[in-house]
Amino acid sequence: MWSEPVARGATPRAAPAARAVCLLGTGHAVPSGVLKSEAVDHRLGLAPGAIERLSGVRQRPVASRTDTAARLGAQAARCALEAAGLGLGDIDCLVAASGTMDQGMPSNAALIHRELGLRGVPGFDVNASCLGFIAALDTLSWAVQAGRYRRVLVVAADIASCGLDWNHLEASAIFGDGAAAAVLAPSGDGVGGRILAADLLTISEGAHLCQIPAGGSRHHPTRIDGAFEPLALFHMDGPRVFKLATRYLPDFLDRLLGSAGVTLRDIDWVVPHQASRLAMTHLSRRLGMGGERVVDIFSDHGNQIAASLPTALDTAVRDGRIRRGHRLLLLGTGAGLSLGGVVMEF
Amino acid sequence: MWSEPVARGATPRAAPAARAVCLLGTGHAVPSGVLKSEAVDHRLGLAPGAIERLSGVRQRPVASRTDTAARLGAQAARCALEAAGLGLGDIDCLVAASGTMDQGMPSNAALIHRELGLRGVPGFDVNASCLGFIAALDTLSWAVQAGRYRRVLVVAADIASCGLDWNHLEASAIFGDGAAAAVLAPSGDGVGGRILAADLLTISEGAHLCQIPAGGSRHHPTRIDGAFEPLALFHMDGPRVFKLATRYLPDFLDRLLGSAGVTLRDIDWVVPHQASRLAMTHLSRRLGMGGERVVDIFSDHGNQIAASLPTALDTAVRDGRIRRGHRLLLLGTGAGLSLGGVVMEF
Repeated sequence: MWSEPVARGATPRAAPAARAVCLLGTGHAVPSGVLKSEAVDHRLGLAPGAIERLSGVRQRPVASRTDTAARLGAQAARCALEAAGLGLGDIDCLVAASGTMDQGMPSNAALIHRELGLRGVPGFDVNASCLGFIAALDTLSWAVQAGRYRRVLVVAADIASCGLDWNHLEASAIFGDGAAAAVLAPSGDGVGGRILAADLLTISEGAHLCQIPAGGSRHHPTRIDGAFEPLALFHMDGPRVFKLATRYLPDFLDRLLGSAGVTLRDIDWVVPHQASRLAMTHLSRRLGMGGERVVDIFSDHGNQIAASLPTALDTAVRDGRIRRGHRLLLLGTGAGLSLGGVVMEF
Repeated sequence: MWSEPVARGATPRAAPAARAVCLLGTGHAVPSGVLKSEAVDHRLGLAPGAIERLSGVRQRPVASRTDTAARLGAQAARCALEAAGLGLGDIDCLVAASGTMDQGMPSNAALIHRELGLRGVPGFDVNASCLGFIAALDTLSWAVQAGRYRRVLVVAADIASCGLDWNHLEASAIFGDGAAAAVLAPSGDGVGGRILAADLLTISEGAHLCQIPAGGSRHHPTRIDGAFEPLALFHMDGPRVFKLATRYLPDFLDRLLGSAGVTLRDIDWVVPHQASRLAMTHLSRRLGMGGERVVDIFSDHGNQIAASLPTALDTAVRDGRIRRGHRLLLLGTGAGLSLGGVVMEF
């Protein structure tokens, strides 16, 4: 049964069948710079250890001034292609699933497409803030299942570090930069994974709780009176985000698992969006799962926006924790405020 | 046969079958302000008629300083719902297909979702610059066909006027603001339309020919040395865009029509992206179609970015030119550089 907050306004629908669609390969990339929390302590004149205690992040990858999200994305994409044993010519669609824009126009996909030197294939963005990977995986899987595309390269690349307001530590100390990618394809050719269920929910009463006000038309420099730069920084009302997310998450999760026909006991690995230490701890507790079944890269990566979840996934695939046949729960919250999840056999 | 430029690098694939997916209703909205070309002549000290002769635009809708893309989008969405005889509670997914962002974060969909007061349903963006409507229609149709969603509200809302550089008239005088929406649903319930074929192609050697450099991480105010505002304006190398687009368009169109199993003679109405007077004239000539089969709203709307094509569609539906059963070709070019098209029975 759907409980009230989730069901209100939703059109009842028959749960579609599982999709014989899998991830042929995954990859990720981080910029070469690293910002250690002790360096932030020093810069801000705080006691050693203060930033790590506050944020739960020991260090996070940070882009140099000349790094671009497109270049990071292309690096992650090549890594995913290599893992899949494929070349650029095997891809027939590029989807950028980043949570931030690289430029105002064109799409992130066009810029990554150019970095890769792709030819003859389309590129477009699926943007669901931190949940871009889940939204792209869910949405494109239907097109793959139908044969519209055979191999979709999904890339999430975000440079968060440029938009942080270090006067608000709780909304700045947690972020890192990075990119991750995956090749989505029909199951077969020796890979038998499938997507059992996926869901997304936007609770837009929280649309302004996590935001970058500028970057688009609303607070365009030609339309505002005051200073532009503060509007180009990330703002977050952490307590209200947490409250709203935790109110909706239990029902959302029940519904997702129900659609997949599984229970938490059937899940081998939870791969959460690495939102914050608080969010990760709450999630593990809520799921009744200790660290041995939850992929946690937060202390060395921070929250890498949309690159976060697929970076965690790729990390656990590469270190051998996640193996073919494992049942995964990808789960997270994002600006919007949105909840998203995928249950899949890897 | 695909000719070389299009086919290079593409993975051969079986053309998927037509989708029994239709547009239950369409709508559009324009802001209340209007900028007449004669007012621009006056402001820039040009001879009366100069801007209209140069741009082909007599007047274009322009947003006031307090209009937001989300509010315009919500207005268009309500209009499309009314045309479909539906209420908000009948929608189970909102997709924003705008070509520009409203804010840097969250997604455009979250902001439109909030304006509408939607509850219990997801919202995310599909961004393919000016081709967002085509990309969203194509991509989401597979999810609708599979039963993942029953009724997807696709909304494109763009405020272009804030980002125009009036020192470059060819890249400023052609734009207008607006929003348009459509409800995508399985055919049936008395509506028998279907999508016969859709295709997209990105030619990313042209990624920087149409661009807004700033608005994201690449030229974030914290990462640049010079002035920010010029980077937040739209730049276009019109002649090179035109040259690149016209080089790829013939093969793209042949392939699209071939996939749909139709010829141009079978098309009742072409609904082009209203890119520019030059592009529209070239397209009509190339298709061998006069104004009687090409929907042209350019002189009173300009190029409304991603809202442009669905606004043209809705205009021709509302004035009775496009009727149920008509075979439509939606076609356009966008920043990326991308080509996109849909052949559908309305």
